[in-house]
Amino acid sequence: MISKNDVKYIQSLFHKKTRDAEGLFIAEGPKLVNELLESSLLIKQVYALPEWIEQHPNVEGVKIISEIELQKISGLQTPNQVLAVAIKPVLNTEPVLAGQLSLVLDGIQDPGNLGTIIRIADWFGVNQIIASEDTADIYNPKVVQATMGSIIRVKVWYKHLDEWVANVTVPVFGALLNGTNINNCEKIKEGLLIVGNEGRGIRPEILPFIQHPLTIPGRGKAESLNAAVATGIILSHIT
Amino acid sequence: MISKNDVKYIQSLFHKKTRDAEGLFIAEGPKLVNELLESSLLIKQVYALPEWIEQHPNVEGVKIISEIELQKISGLQTPNQVLAVAIKPVLNTEPVLAGQLSLVLDGIQDPGNLGTIIRIADWFGVNQIIASEDTADIYNPKVVQATMGSIIRVKVWYKHLDEWVANVTVPVFGALLNGTNINNCEKIKEGLLIVGNEGRGIRPEILPFIQHPLTIPGRGKAESLNAAVATGIILSHIT
Repeated sequence: MISKNDVKYIQSLFHKKTRDAEGLFIAEGPKLVNELLESSLLIKQVYALPEWIEQHPNVEGVKIISEIELQKISGLQTPNQVLAVAIKPVLNTEPVLAGQLSLVLDGIQDPGNLGTIIRIADWFGVNQIIASEDTADIYNPKVVQATMGSIIRVKVWYKHLDEWVANVTVPVFGALLNGTNINNCEKIKEGLLIVGNEGRGIRPEILPFIQHPLTIPGRGKAESLNAAVATGIILSHIT
Repeated sequence: MISKNDVKYIQSLFHKKTRDAEGLFIAEGPKLVNELLESSLLIKQVYALPEWIEQHPNVEGVKIISEIELQKISGLQTPNQVLAVAIKPVLNTEPVLAGQLSLVLDGIQDPGNLGTIIRIADWFGVNQIIASEDTADIYNPKVVQATMGSIIRVKVWYKHLDEWVANVTVPVFGALLNGTNINNCEKIKEGLLIVGNEGRGIRPEILPFIQHPLTIPGRGKAESLNAAVATGIILSHIT
């Protein structure tokens, strides 16, 4: 059983304002919740169907709910057994730029794209993302779901990007249309890779800081690639 | 003005059954509709706001509609000026496999993924896709929108895949987890690249036909990559 107040409270966490105020986020489905439970992140409450609870006898304090109750609190089209309310980790540190490749996102708007990019970063061993303030919220439930668990491993900082990038001392690479062909590019051991917004690309204010523009050569007639796909392709060539 | 019957008719085209029966599909927004108008595809009717019509004085027979009417017939969250009902092209030919790379999709379910894959294929100059019968419908409006116009240039055939692939004579490559590292792979001038379903990958029945498994090496802890991202990465290495 879940109280009406609990339902309202969980539903309110689908809004950024409440997530920020409460320091909480939502994760759903066995895969993601299991990864959370195994991680160092703290979980406030797990709500689950009886079948999930049976399969996870070691998880304590789970609230048992019905399918209809899960539907009420779930943000998924097809609710999937379990929903966790987790505590947002606090980033006390600044990103360490020396000696590794970090990803910089300039205004990624689509939650699905952002989640997919976090998953891609994790795949290629990139553990740090610096995002502009107008990038989607990584704790948006759609982002969390699209990361498929990678949100636990990749750290994301939000920065006022043009000021921040002006002060970095590592090499700055950017995904642009008229740069070095990524097929002719050496592996990058240290630096930033900047990826721009889905529609407008990287903002003009950021462009002067890009020392090494990189380009994915195309042979067909498509005008562009999806931002997440472009990020994946470039990382696959430079890492 | 648009009649109630027209509204109903257009709304019915969001269902595959009606699209198949009528041989029609929907495309929305200035970019996509402009590409359609410039292509060899036939358009049954264009519905547009006055501002779109003003900017396109040479397009004849456009039905002028209001924003509220556009909202009624649009499948987009944010309707965008213009909607076209277009005639599905009839594929009279079979794919030509010799001398080029073709893409094979085994059960891509998500319309956004399918549209993105068509856009990626177009970017890399791959003009032929052979899809299993359980792959999403390319004329699903969500697929059409996600292709960003590439649907006009890339041909897609639906086949009973295990029978079809048994009879091909070109080399067969597949995106798998334990294959040749794509960084060590030569460019492919002729053959098929098979990409599997988002969750289960390539079906067991298809696996015996793959002579050359290809793998995207990962360094992090993500278990997998999104199907469209994986397709983009592999094509960027082998084309």
